[in-house]
Amino acid sequence: MSIDADNCVALSGGVGGTKLILGLSHVINGNNLSVIGNTGDDFEHLGLAISPDLDTLLYTLAGQVNPETGWGRSNETWSFMEALDELGGETWFRLGDRDLAVHLERTRRLTNGDSLSEVTTRLCNQLGITMQILPMTDETVRTRVLTDRGALDFQHYFVRDRAEPRVLGLEYVGAESARPTKAVLEALNNPDLAAIIIAPSNPYLSIDPILAIPGIRSAIAAASAPVVAVSPIVAGAAIKGPTAKIMAEFGHDTTAAGIASHYHDLLDGFILDEMDQGLAAEVKMLNLEVGICDTVMKSLNDKIRLARFTLEFAASIGKRTA
Amino acid sequence: MSIDADNCVALSGGVGGTKLILGLSHVINGNNLSVIGNTGDDFEHLGLAISPDLDTLLYTLAGQVNPETGWGRSNETWSFMEALDELGGETWFRLGDRDLAVHLERTRRLTNGDSLSEVTTRLCNQLGITMQILPMTDETVRTRVLTDRGALDFQHYFVRDRAEPRVLGLEYVGAESARPTKAVLEALNNPDLAAIIIAPSNPYLSIDPILAIPGIRSAIAAASAPVVAVSPIVAGAAIKGPTAKIMAEFGHDTTAAGIASHYHDLLDGFILDEMDQGLAAEVKMLNLEVGICDTVMKSLNDKIRLARFTLEFAASIGKRTA
Repeated sequence: MSIDADNCVALSGGVGGTKLILGLSHVINGNNLSVIGNTGDDFEHLGLAISPDLDTLLYTLAGQVNPETGWGRSNETWSFMEALDELGGETWFRLGDRDLAVHLERTRRLTNGDSLSEVTTRLCNQLGITMQILPMTDETVRTRVLTDRGALDFQHYFVRDRAEPRVLGLEYVGAESARPTKAVLEALNNPDLAAIIIAPSNPYLSIDPILAIPGIRSAIAAASAPVVAVSPIVAGAAIKGPTAKIMAEFGHDTTAAGIASHYHDLLDGFILDEMDQGLAAEVKMLNLEVGICDTVMKSLNDKIRLARFTLEFAASIGKRTA
Repeated sequence: MSIDADNCVALSGGVGGTKLILGLSHVINGNNLSVIGNTGDDFEHLGLAISPDLDTLLYTLAGQVNPETGWGRSNETWSFMEALDELGGETWFRLGDRDLAVHLERTRRLTNGDSLSEVTTRLCNQLGITMQILPMTDETVRTRVLTDRGALDFQHYFVRDRAEPRVLGLEYVGAESARPTKAVLEALNNPDLAAIIIAPSNPYLSIDPILAIPGIRSAIAAASAPVVAVSPIVAGAAIKGPTAKIMAEFGHDTTAAGIASHYHDLLDGFILDEMDQGLAAEVKMLNLEVGICDTVMKSLNDKIRLARFTLEFAASIGKRTA
């Protein structure tokens, strides 16, 4: 049963947030769902333009994601990596043979002058995806991680160095002067928008790069729809990735309430896991509505259930008045 | 048993000529063998710098060539091509997953400013090849095929259109102003050179692009060593590829003698297959020494036998006097 009339915009990074996006794709009809994807993780590697978060969205919504990792492609093979290793090439970033086809096509089209949005739309069409995957911008934004081992490009920090260095700060290089794409603004300005959902992604590494683009933050603030975030922290731990580790490194409380506080000026409501219902009062102090449910998504049914809860919660709370 | 002291330079294209090169690699010690490879077939495809003839040499000498085709890699997988097809990409030029590693590494290094010679030497080292594979030039030379369907880039003619169009003429774009590499000139100018061997490759598509570089033709003419060609035509048919078809389209006799005539001003000797011994008198009329043996190379032993015969023949005839 899909919710026909509702238009929904979601902000998402990679594996963590994409679980909810997959759930949303099952309850919202086709292109009524627009996902603004983080491109701060994008990088150039082996001469290829790689967009890890967009690809995770792409493979997930195409039903082609590797079910064991949540990223990369199912039925993947690794001959290219083996051969590259033999040639003494850089192999710390694992590129599967099928995955490579997307990177080569993207790179080729970008080189030919297509925008990242155009390339992404075409990839969606080719893979039979009816939802809209929207890069946050067609301009270059790059997350730089300031660590105790020096400033690192995001993928060097995250993949090569396995998020081990201590994070002292983050920079979203290029974000301040970057413009949202036309499609992103249209999606956020849509007067029929039912909800803006911040997926349970890492706030610092996945959502903040999107919000760092001034035009996006202001469009969200001005939107007619309620803005709801789902906590990526449950019972003080991150479901996925280094969220809790970075919160601690920044001296924040590693709780769901800490996440609510991080976003609060932008939010109308916040969804806590049942295990964190003791934090509801703290979140309400931020002048936010609170929804409570089981937010841990293991099965597809979990994802659909949380998506439905989130949409119903957003519909129930409406836009808070300033 | 290898012939220790002899330095030998061979000119070769892809699959056909490479059979003899493999034989030579078994009878000449390591880097005493230098192979000048045709780069007129090189092209840019999907953003990658592809050098088909150099790669066939590379894979063959590394013992990694696909034994069924004579090009591409053994134990190859094709996931990339399948995925590219799904994305609507160009799939007429088959790129295996392992093969891709070479193209990406080459492209990356060329983009970083390495020369094609440097890239090729590095690939040889990584793959454990002790012979020298020398691109004919580090500059861009591109074979253009003038056909009854218009002017075609070489790989469009050869692979995409399966060499079906009628060839009216050939252009080696860039050859006249291209310079041989330092390594090519050093190999040809070596006073200890025992032989220069023109492998049984297609004269028009594989060898002429090399000879079209003025500095190479003059260095061969001036070299102290005898120049010997092995016929790629046996009993009026090409062992491999469209050689006979193109000879006929150019109005030449599709015989081994026609090949001898094509090269004759550069040659001291010519090797005919036993089946063509009736042509010996005709070839001798060109003021060439004639060697006759079984030139059809099926097994590795065939390749070694022909390599040995060719070297002994060259040693026996010496340089002809003008």
